[in-house]
Amino acid sequence: MQDRAALILAAGQGTRMKSEIPKVLHKVGGRAMLDWSIDLARKSGCRRIIVVVSAGSQALQDHVTRELGEGSFVIQDPPMGTGHAVQAAEQGLQDFDGDLIVLYGDCPLIPETAVNDLFGELANGADLGVLGFEAEDPGAYGRLIQTADGRLEGIVEAKEANAEQLAIRLCNSGVMAGARELMFDLLSKVTNDNAKGEYYLTDVVGLANEAGRFCRAVTCAEQDVLGVNSRVELAQAEAVFQAKRRDTFLRDGVTMTAPETVFLSHDTMIGNDVEIEPNVVFGTGVKVESGARIRAFSHLEGAVVHTGAEVGPYARLRPGAEIGEKARIGNFVEVKNTTVGKGAKANHLAYLGDGSVGAGANIGAGTIFCNYDGFLKYRTEIGAEAFIGSNSALVAPVSIGERAIVGSGSVITQNVSDDALALGRGKQVEKPGWSKGFREQKQREKSSKR
Amino acid sequence: MQDRAALILAAGQGTRMKSEIPKVLHKVGGRAMLDWSIDLARKSGCRRIIVVVSAGSQALQDHVTRELGEGSFVIQDPPMGTGHAVQAAEQGLQDFDGDLIVLYGDCPLIPETAVNDLFGELANGADLGVLGFEAEDPGAYGRLIQTADGRLEGIVEAKEANAEQLAIRLCNSGVMAGARELMFDLLSKVTNDNAKGEYYLTDVVGLANEAGRFCRAVTCAEQDVLGVNSRVELAQAEAVFQAKRRDTFLRDGVTMTAPETVFLSHDTMIGNDVEIEPNVVFGTGVKVESGARIRAFSHLEGAVVHTGAEVGPYARLRPGAEIGEKARIGNFVEVKNTTVGKGAKANHLAYLGDGSVGAGANIGAGTIFCNYDGFLKYRTEIGAEAFIGSNSALVAPVSIGERAIVGSGSVITQNVSDDALALGRGKQVEKPGWSKGFREQKQREKSSKR
Amino acid sequence: MQDRAALILAAGQGTRMKSEIPKVLHKVGGRAMLDWSIDLARKSGCRRIIVVVSAGSQALQDHVTRELGEGSFVIQDPPMGTGHAVQAAEQGLQDFDGDLIVLYGDCPLIPETAVNDLFGELANGADLGVLGFEAEDPGAYGRLIQTADGRLEGIVEAKEANAEQLAIRLCNSGVMAGARELMFDLLSKVTNDNAKGEYYLTDVVGLANEAGRFCRAVTCAEQDVLGVNSRVELAQAEAVFQAKRRDTFLRDGVTMTAPETVFLSHDTMIGNDVEIEPNVVFGTGVKVESGARIRAFSHLEGAVVHTGAEVGPYARLRPGAEIGEKARIGNFVEVKNTTVGKGAKANHLAYLGDGSVGAGANIGAGTIFCNYDGFLKYRTEIGAEAFIGSNSALVAPVSIGERAIVGSGSVITQNVSDDALALGRGKQVEKPGWSKGFREQKQREKSSKR
Repeated sequence: MQDRAALILAAGQGTRMKSEIPKVLHKVGGRAMLDWSIDLARKSGCRRIIVVVSAGSQALQDHVTRELGEGSFVIQDPPMGTGHAVQAAEQGLQDFDGDLIVLYGDCPLIPETAVNDLFGELANGADLGVLGFEAEDPGAYGRLIQTADGRLEGIVEAKEANAEQLAIRLCNSGVMAGARELMFDLLSKVTNDNAKGEYYLTDVVGLANEAGRFCRAVTCAEQDVLGVNSRVELAQAEAVFQAKRRDTFLRDGVTMTAPETVFLSHDTMIGNDVEIEPNVVFGTGVKVESGARIRAFSHLEGAVVHTGAEVGPYARLRPGAEIGEKARIGNFVEVKNTTVGKGAKANHLAYLGDGSVGAGANIGAGTIFCNYDGFLKYRTEIGAEAFIGSNSALVAPVSIGERAIVGSGSVITQNVSDDALALGRGKQVEKPGWSKGFREQKQREKSSKR
Repeated sequence: MQDRAALILAAGQGTRMKSEIPKVLHKVGGRAMLDWSIDLARKSGCRRIIVVVSAGSQALQDHVTRELGEGSFVIQDPPMGTGHAVQAAEQGLQDFDGDLIVLYGDCPLIPETAVNDLFGELANGADLGVLGFEAEDPGAYGRLIQTADGRLEGIVEAKEANAEQLAIRLCNSGVMAGARELMFDLLSKVTNDNAKGEYYLTDVVGLANEAGRFCRAVTCAEQDVLGVNSRVELAQAEAVFQAKRRDTFLRDGVTMTAPETVFLSHDTMIGNDVEIEPNVVFGTGVKVESGARIRAFSHLEGAVVHTGAEVGPYARLRPGAEIGEKARIGNFVEVKNTTVGKGAKANHLAYLGDGSVGAGANIGAGTIFCNYDGFLKYRTEIGAEAFIGSNSALVAPVSIGERAIVGSGSVITQNVSDDALALGRGKQVEKPGWSKGFREQKQREKSSKR
Repeated sequence: MQDRAALILAAGQGTRMKSEIPKVLHKVGGRAMLDWSIDLARKSGCRRIIVVVSAGSQALQDHVTRELGEGSFVIQDPPMGTGHAVQAAEQGLQDFDGDLIVLYGDCPLIPETAVNDLFGELANGADLGVLGFEAEDPGAYGRLIQTADGRLEGIVEAKEANAEQLAIRLCNSGVMAGARELMFDLLSKVTNDNAKGEYYLTDVVGLANEAGRFCRAVTCAEQDVLGVNSRVELAQAEAVFQAKRRDTFLRDGVTMTAPETVFLSHDTMIGNDVEIEPNVVFGTGVKVESGARIRAFSHLEGAVVHTGAEVGPYARLRPGAEIGEKARIGNFVEVKNTTVGKGAKANHLAYLGDGSVGAGANIGAGTIFCNYDGFLKYRTEIGAEAFIGSNSALVAPVSIGERAIVGSGSVITQNVSDDALALGRGKQVEKPGWSKGFREQKQREKSSKR
């Protein structure tokens, strides 16, 4: 196999986004659009990935360096078209002898199969491959002109197309692959002799044909090459991502009462026979094992839910939450950086932060792990089969022994031994008849305030 | 009226569901698909209902026995087509002398009117009735062939249909009714002389016509005969159910800001002038009376909300919650197996489990009914007009008298008399300036940890 | 510019709503439909606004008086058509010398531009202007008949239209404008010589043409003139409002992962680069400044969120909540009538009612502002950089000094000085081995109960 490299064009200004954030760093499925293209390039076997950015895009340059290492971006300054953008990377690729694919930082949904098809055409003898799509409404898209025997003859801009060409629905996505040497050779012949005075990458197809080269188009669905230039389009791309991912999970055996209300991330993992009620949000880094149940209005990020566990409604799992087999996290319960053991329960209104809960333990309603003193965070460790009475405050660092019981409403500041009972609460006192006087006084106050 | 019986075919393997759960036990509108068909049969006056299941479907067989009693299923082993499935029930119906309808366990949305129409055709002289539907895209469905005067001549499989027949959009749902004796008589003549080597129920229509019998088709909407073979289709059936039920409630005078975000169950009851905000989930067994208001993000199961009560946002009502007239259950409040009296309020962050709240009582924010000691559950009874201060823990079994007051932050373990004040909390002490030293020390700790 | 007045017809019975509430008081985008029309009239420069109501509509009459002052409604009794309704207002407008527009109380989505266009036609010489719309399916709508040179010749009811007229897709919205004098002059000639025996406002267009007057149609989108006669149509109008408003915010630079799950009100204000996760409900009176983040399942009403603040998931902001710059309100936290200072945090399970939180303060999980004693409400004031330990109850009126610390699980009833530590909780005691005996006893109890 030829060596592979990818160029990702990300120098567009994205002014229609009306954002301080560089366009390609806006997210789809919880991942920056640029990172979708980087991921695609990696999965397609590209060993070198270069991102073309604009001058003055410091946040973007930092992001690229973080993701791909030093020397992974080139600056296109000033921007003079897609062809010019590719040329900006020429010098950095001079030592590269293989196939080059041009991707886009604002086009996050291209499937791996499409890229493999493109490289496949090169392997099968094509000199240049272009990714096209059948457009519902071709409108202003460039049309791919093919011969009867499947040779790609050229790309015609809609403005310059004749009636016959305008009737073609196969359009240009902009994604193109070819041998590095050929690509730059052709690019050197592209001129900016057009209305905008720009150098267009698409022109290389015509030049390749003139030079007797063999070009081929491969296709994917229109929604897969959706480019994002505004937040309306960003939301559309998100919707396409969500619909595809939901469909995949349904086909893999996940039950969703209302799939359109379940929001997934690019890396969400869900086992079969998992049941998901309406209105569940999966942030990044979540894994749900087979047979677990995620009830309505739950929000999960960076969490693992083991087999047979039940979570929600209204459960919030934050990074580091690990919910054991058949454990139960109920309503208005937040779990962060805490392991909950097999069969353990925290059913109501609790905060479990920075700790561990042993197997079979029961955490009463309103229990709080007081993990923070305003400066540092501390751990709360609860032993197996322990019972924490409702409305208790466990002041970390603290450990509760196995089978120990904490009385309801206690504030626990010291460790509790195995099998012990711990109480930390006021003694009940009663003032008989007191309410009568209080009511009379308050009624007077209330009247006088009116 | 003729006696009526129903056969429900439920022997399909449902492999495309990729589930450990038998296909027909997957739910639509909170009810197993099979139970929709059982319910339909019952409502249509079928006094005998037999479910045809496959060998080795223990969970399904148990379900049928639970729902319909002993002897209510027959096993089809091995499966050899729909006609064969019906024949599996022949012996059990030998003493039955009346009309028989064939329904399906994976086709949950058939309306009662369609079944009544079928039986009505039999009453009006038809020998056999078939339920058809006008297909948007008839594709591979069997076509119903009718004469100009409305006689059903036959059912033609798409594969064997000619161009004229393929143009017919009236398709076969598979639901069929006829006299028991005739049905089995015709079935005995059906052969498995086809590609799959199966006995098809649909063949009886042609045989009936050959025998000079009079067959008729009745119709319903395509979405009403949606069959479920995958979780994608299960989600589609759920969506059809939800859309129809929402529409019914809107027409009956329920206000929903965003009906598409309200999820209903098969047995949900909602009075007129009820207002429902976006994102509300009704599990099974909920009744909401006129003029109540269900605010956003609420989740209700097995609960009753009386006239003029207001619930939510973020209220969770669980089975046995009964919210009195003009009572108020607010955000992050869970109510389970508890009666809340007229005009009583629990507005914030509370758990009311296994108890009763008297009329006009006020349950402060953060109050917990500590109903469980790890082994058994106990009741909390709160008298009328009582005031429970915020963040109190009421340790059941316990009762709070009428007009009694519980001070904020109290742990109450003993009963409180009418009109009394009860307190159970620590005394406040202050250490002036202590924070300064603490802060300095913690800053040092924090620095040293870095 | 001519003086402008508006008549809003609101005398319809709305029986299809099946509601105790007058139809035009049902809400779209959190505002009564009638108030949309009043607002439209005001924005279009109408200095006099009269609402035509039916007899016996006390709640509606009170609403109009509240919104527009005494003498702002006229009663149409009995109702005899739209022309008759306008005539009911004739006497009250005799001293008015200017242009009159007829609007509807059940047609809330008409854009200001459409009304400006109508008045513009009058300014440019038209005698009468009618608002039309291109109908997808014109069906029973009245058709606007125009000459080739753009003169509106008449309005033909669908029932009386010939084939050529039925092919016209430009339909009558009912909204009409003209000089007051001309309008009433023409109306006086309208007869009730039709099937229903009613006086139709639309007839004035034909009469105007007969009198040699110049009529003009202006147009808007069909969804903008959606009239509401049932709750199904009310939900449709809400959906149109939401879709338009969401689109506006996206174009203005707001990120919404799933715009279709974000519910906005008529007065919602959101700055650019605000990020909104799925499932957020904005009630009325909310302002979110640039760069803030509103996480999933949040519910906001009457609240302000300043730059860079983060709210939710599951945050409930109620009227009077003001969340300072870079402050943080987390899950299951309710804030009401409380100012939260710059950089302050209340991350978990808290109720902040009637108070203030100083800059940089930290409110621990489960903290409750005990603001209500069953009769009156009191304030809780927390100083800058104070630290409130988890599960504390702050019994108002109370103030916590700057940099003060409240120990976890405390009940605070007295003011705490700057830099002090305050504790108010029981002392922890332990009964070693106690759990063993308890467990054995409970196991016996549990067994005996079975």
